[in-house]
Amino acid sequence: MIKVAVVGASGYAGGELLRILLGHKEVEVVAVTSESSAGKHIAALFPNLGRLCNLTLEKMDATTIAEKASFVFLAVPHKEAMEAAAKFVGIGTRVVDLSADLRFRDARVYEDWYETEHSQPGLCYMSVYGLPELYRKEIKQARVVGNPGCYPTGAILALAPLVKEGLVELDSIIIDSKSGVSGAGRTPGAMYHYPEANETITAYKIGKHRHTPEIEQELSNMSGEATIVSFTPHLTPMTRGILTTAYAKMKKYKGPDTLLALYAKFYRKDFFVRILGKGNYPTVSAVRGSNFCDIGLYSDLRTGRVVVTSAIDNLVKGAAGQAVQNFNIMLGFEETEGLKHLGMFP
Amino acid sequence: MIKVAVVGASGYAGGELLRILLGHKEVEVVAVTSESSAGKHIAALFPNLGRLCNLTLEKMDATTIAEKASFVFLAVPHKEAMEAAAKFVGIGTRVVDLSADLRFRDARVYEDWYETEHSQPGLCYMSVYGLPELYRKEIKQARVVGNPGCYPTGAILALAPLVKEGLVELDSIIIDSKSGVSGAGRTPGAMYHYPEANETITAYKIGKHRHTPEIEQELSNMSGEATIVSFTPHLTPMTRGILTTAYAKMKKYKGPDTLLALYAKFYRKDFFVRILGKGNYPTVSAVRGSNFCDIGLYSDLRTGRVVVTSAIDNLVKGAAGQAVQNFNIMLGFEETEGLKHLGMFP
Amino acid sequence: MIKVAVVGASGYAGGELLRILLGHKEVEVVAVTSESSAGKHIAALFPNLGRLCNLTLEKMDATTIAEKASFVFLAVPHKEAMEAAAKFVGIGTRVVDLSADLRFRDARVYEDWYETEHSQPGLCYMSVYGLPELYRKEIKQARVVGNPGCYPTGAILALAPLVKEGLVELDSIIIDSKSGVSGAGRTPGAMYHYPEANETITAYKIGKHRHTPEIEQELSNMSGEATIVSFTPHLTPMTRGILTTAYAKMKKYKGPDTLLALYAKFYRKDFFVRILGKGNYPTVSAVRGSNFCDIGLYSDLRTGRVVVTSAIDNLVKGAAGQAVQNFNIMLGFEETEGLKHLGMFP
Amino acid sequence: MIKVAVVGASGYAGGELLRILLGHKEVEVVAVTSESSAGKHIAALFPNLGRLCNLTLEKMDATTIAEKASFVFLAVPHKEAMEAAAKFVGIGTRVVDLSADLRFRDARVYEDWYETEHSQPGLCYMSVYGLPELYRKEIKQARVVGNPGCYPTGAILALAPLVKEGLVELDSIIIDSKSGVSGAGRTPGAMYHYPEANETITAYKIGKHRHTPEIEQELSNMSGEATIVSFTPHLTPMTRGILTTAYAKMKKYKGPDTLLALYAKFYRKDFFVRILGKGNYPTVSAVRGSNFCDIGLYSDLRTGRVVVTSAIDNLVKGAAGQAVQNFNIMLGFEETEGLKHLGMFP
Repeated sequence: MIKVAVVGASGYAGGELLRILLGHKEVEVVAVTSESSAGKHIAALFPNLGRLCNLTLEKMDATTIAEKASFVFLAVPHKEAMEAAAKFVGIGTRVVDLSADLRFRDARVYEDWYETEHSQPGLCYMSVYGLPELYRKEIKQARVVGNPGCYPTGAILALAPLVKEGLVELDSIIIDSKSGVSGAGRTPGAMYHYPEANETITAYKIGKHRHTPEIEQELSNMSGEATIVSFTPHLTPMTRGILTTAYAKMKKYKGPDTLLALYAKFYRKDFFVRILGKGNYPTVSAVRGSNFCDIGLYSDLRTGRVVVTSAIDNLVKGAAGQAVQNFNIMLGFEETEGLKHLGMFP
Repeated sequence: MIKVAVVGASGYAGGELLRILLGHKEVEVVAVTSESSAGKHIAALFPNLGRLCNLTLEKMDATTIAEKASFVFLAVPHKEAMEAAAKFVGIGTRVVDLSADLRFRDARVYEDWYETEHSQPGLCYMSVYGLPELYRKEIKQARVVGNPGCYPTGAILALAPLVKEGLVELDSIIIDSKSGVSGAGRTPGAMYHYPEANETITAYKIGKHRHTPEIEQELSNMSGEATIVSFTPHLTPMTRGILTTAYAKMKKYKGPDTLLALYAKFYRKDFFVRILGKGNYPTVSAVRGSNFCDIGLYSDLRTGRVVVTSAIDNLVKGAAGQAVQNFNIMLGFEETEGLKHLGMFP
Repeated sequence: MIKVAVVGASGYAGGELLRILLGHKEVEVVAVTSESSAGKHIAALFPNLGRLCNLTLEKMDATTIAEKASFVFLAVPHKEAMEAAAKFVGIGTRVVDLSADLRFRDARVYEDWYETEHSQPGLCYMSVYGLPELYRKEIKQARVVGNPGCYPTGAILALAPLVKEGLVELDSIIIDSKSGVSGAGRTPGAMYHYPEANETITAYKIGKHRHTPEIEQELSNMSGEATIVSFTPHLTPMTRGILTTAYAKMKKYKGPDTLLALYAKFYRKDFFVRILGKGNYPTVSAVRGSNFCDIGLYSDLRTGRVVVTSAIDNLVKGAAGQAVQNFNIMLGFEETEGLKHLGMFP
Repeated sequence: MIKVAVVGASGYAGGELLRILLGHKEVEVVAVTSESSAGKHIAALFPNLGRLCNLTLEKMDATTIAEKASFVFLAVPHKEAMEAAAKFVGIGTRVVDLSADLRFRDARVYEDWYETEHSQPGLCYMSVYGLPELYRKEIKQARVVGNPGCYPTGAILALAPLVKEGLVELDSIIIDSKSGVSGAGRTPGAMYHYPEANETITAYKIGKHRHTPEIEQELSNMSGEATIVSFTPHLTPMTRGILTTAYAKMKKYKGPDTLLALYAKFYRKDFFVRILGKGNYPTVSAVRGSNFCDIGLYSDLRTGRVVVTSAIDNLVKGAAGQAVQNFNIMLGFEETEGLKHLGMFP
């Protein structure tokens, strides 16, 4: 049994980590931390965990945590995360960080988009981007993994085969994403007040969302060229889930059968990516609670564009589930351990 | 008082017509028809109308209706609509048709996309496309108006100034729309069963939705060139509303202030189009129940694209409200009569 | 035109007052106040009012307001309300107060349940409880009206005929109410954060909700005996509406036809109360946005109980609509003016 | 590994059985049946099961099924269920039936409320009512179990300690339940059409719901007297879950601490019943997806009533989860096997 700590366990990603880790055969959760809720029983924050988890939240102290746990999941806000990660890595504890702090190879990109200094550019450099479908081999060796953002997970998986195979015009990529409200976190705010978020949908931070450079880093990596995209996130009246609709101009028209075969081959070793049949498109409810990313596509002869849609649960494949998937790979466990039977429909 | 009939009054558009017409100073609704619900009191179908409307549904007979009413709103399924419209126009009764049957100048486009024969190509030709912001003058003279589809209303209003002014590459237009479930009508079906439509969002009919050629007809008209677009509709877990996110490449970059000024000017005479300030984007709840179309935009220097979003209520500006707006114009009433105070927030 | 001010116009009741008053033929809104949002345009708070209302929020100063307006709607928090009401009544401005401050004839009941001192017991005594179906005559003469709470409105209307006619055991009354989240106001909080309020329902403040003594005051008034009830409110995942399910033991069994006839008679002069036919029960969507209260009932031979359910929109008949109804009565306008065509379905 | 068949696997209870059984260590699902969807892959009906379950639906043939499987879950409509159960029991296959057909000891009660003949009164008599918290010992020996209805599960668990200990007036019991829409099954219908079920709540079948006699049978059993209740179900705008609010007059007032201690003791051996602390009340989201029943209560000195609320997931503890719990008991497995880590919040 690996002893594990969840640092920052009072938010949705923290709670989701616990939900998953409690069902993981090889894991014992030995510590959960929260600065604001220290002293509270975990079930006071996550009523679903009553009787299943008998932990009390404590304040974060890296040395104490590192004595108890040999692996740490960081689910604290950005900036805090880089400091904590540096401490744990310094002590020799392996880390998956769910914040944005360790996702960028080049800390300057982070500094531009997050408008704050990055105190650990070296850590940034040594960290692996935790998208197993692209970096499984590197993750295996990693001491620290930067877990991808929720939007980038859905967007990159939707586009990877096209970009990697050089099938589309790189300057034609448009990503239109629709996220459930839990993606905004657990802190109440006017936009997320039930009567204001219910029965409406809105685009926000058009052209400016911080997940943009993360998507561009990975598409650029795959294409070998600087790749710039239009990315528009939308707040959607549902608790969980992201649907991404991605558009790109094909260099040369290919029909749906060809493209679907290409996708199936590209993801043939990836248990958590499901390619849907021709004419079928993903729906968020099919992946709710699960670590799957469903992908469907349409190849449009009229416009020469391919339209790819992907669905994930933002808290699972877009956060905690992917973090455990990375953990499994880092520790040499079955990649699907603890992650298989999480989905719920309807 | 103009005597008016609502033919096809058992669906959502029919009910919405009644909600609006009952508050219209110049209108008396004298007949409501439904083939399936003939004999029922209107409040049995629309419980909100109890005590406000004392009509009983009858079967449609054009001659009888034309004797009672001098104006007809057609809210019956396509195919039925063209036959009924032909009868009423033949008798000399003016008509707004809410179906797709009279939206296309060229009936062959209809036949291609709706995969059925058009029995009234002449009527099609004489009918005016009922988007007042573009065709106010023609509507005034029209004997029959083809009321626009819900998606086209939001999409065309979002793009018209750009296309008319020749500011964007016509082959770069992408329209990503998110509709509430009432857009699918009142007939129950698996996709619209509450547990299946709730807490999820899905793209459907990608590249094949019948509103595509309608959008293209109008954009082509404005640009003077055949204009082909990518259009993707999504089923969104809310009862009403459509949010449209439209993307286009600018021929030459223009900043947001310039573009917003252009939009304000373009729509300066249009009470029901509200252009939001820089950095503000429309939300469906701001137009719920109302005839407004809210528009906001972002001009992206990085990608050279403009992203325009528009919000409408699919049953009001996207159907019944616009129909009454057309009626007001045709009859020479104040364009806003009966339409001003419909919105509800939250 | 009566010049009217809305004091406390930044919350949901304030916004709803504006929505209604803007469509009222006899009213001009001349001032809107908010301490926290003074200086903002009203449309910044209520996006539905854009282009319909050109007012800017100001800080509340009773003298200034009284110079501009001859009637004031108070939609400020309790405690603030009693002070403001006292000022306006002192100046001679007529007032409808939407807070709880002037609902109790006996200020000591208020002090017990609201756990705070009442500084205006005299005002309390002179104020009329603003439920027109019970106090139309008194409202007509009133200088100040205490507008009923949302839960009490639905509960009292559901039970009044039974209690007034002495048909039920007074100690057997149970009221189980389900409210939409807008009932909790516009201030964000953990319980009303979208992901926490969505997809769940919860009872709260069982046996302790402050609307209990208000219901009891009115039932006691009607029965002529101290009447104590069990009242349980529930937070329900919808934006608007309250469904109340009330139970009472009949002294002597009466069948549904008898009871429905009694209800119809009791409310025969009340436009805004609709009694549904046998076997039909109210649904919140039928009254959404409207000032109606729908009532249905079942008389149960097996248990000797009558079960009455009522549906209202908490922001309309449960707040702003009823306030305007009271205003209409006080000013001698048609009681339904501005209130007829507000409902929206679906 | 026990070989198991799910007969009637196309509805929500069937899908939920599969979700749970796929994570059960001791189970292999060998057959899934559906008359209407025979020939389809299971993932065509339950998109969450894609890649997790490779079964194809077949038509039900008892002999074929009994050859493959040694245990059968019946999730077919009532009437069909009794016939199928009789066949399987005849062959010697053990059965949990999720329909209402085997819940009543006395088939005549069934015949009265379900208005149809019961062809298997003997089977009815030998069947055990599958509420483990009351009948664990009998379930262990049972060849056939009638799995409780969703409403009765929540209602009986809420009231059992009070009734068993004789603390309340039996003729004072009122049960007000609020159910998510999945409780109505998977067949589309007007009431469950998204725009009609969304944003509203409605009482239905007041005094006449078929779960009434089931609740009464069990309360009568426990009290030793014929116990008649008022039961009102409500359709609530959420996919899953039932919140039950139960009211009863105490024979002698007992404070909340006493009652909560009594409940804790009563359910001390029941993993799936969680008694909340004083002042805390259950919420559906805390049990969503899980087999828990959360219970909280308020003891009201003013009225002498106790108000108990319980929350369950109607598809889990109210159907499939409880069925697997019964299966575990019948087969001698750990009662919690496959059922521990199912909950999801938010």
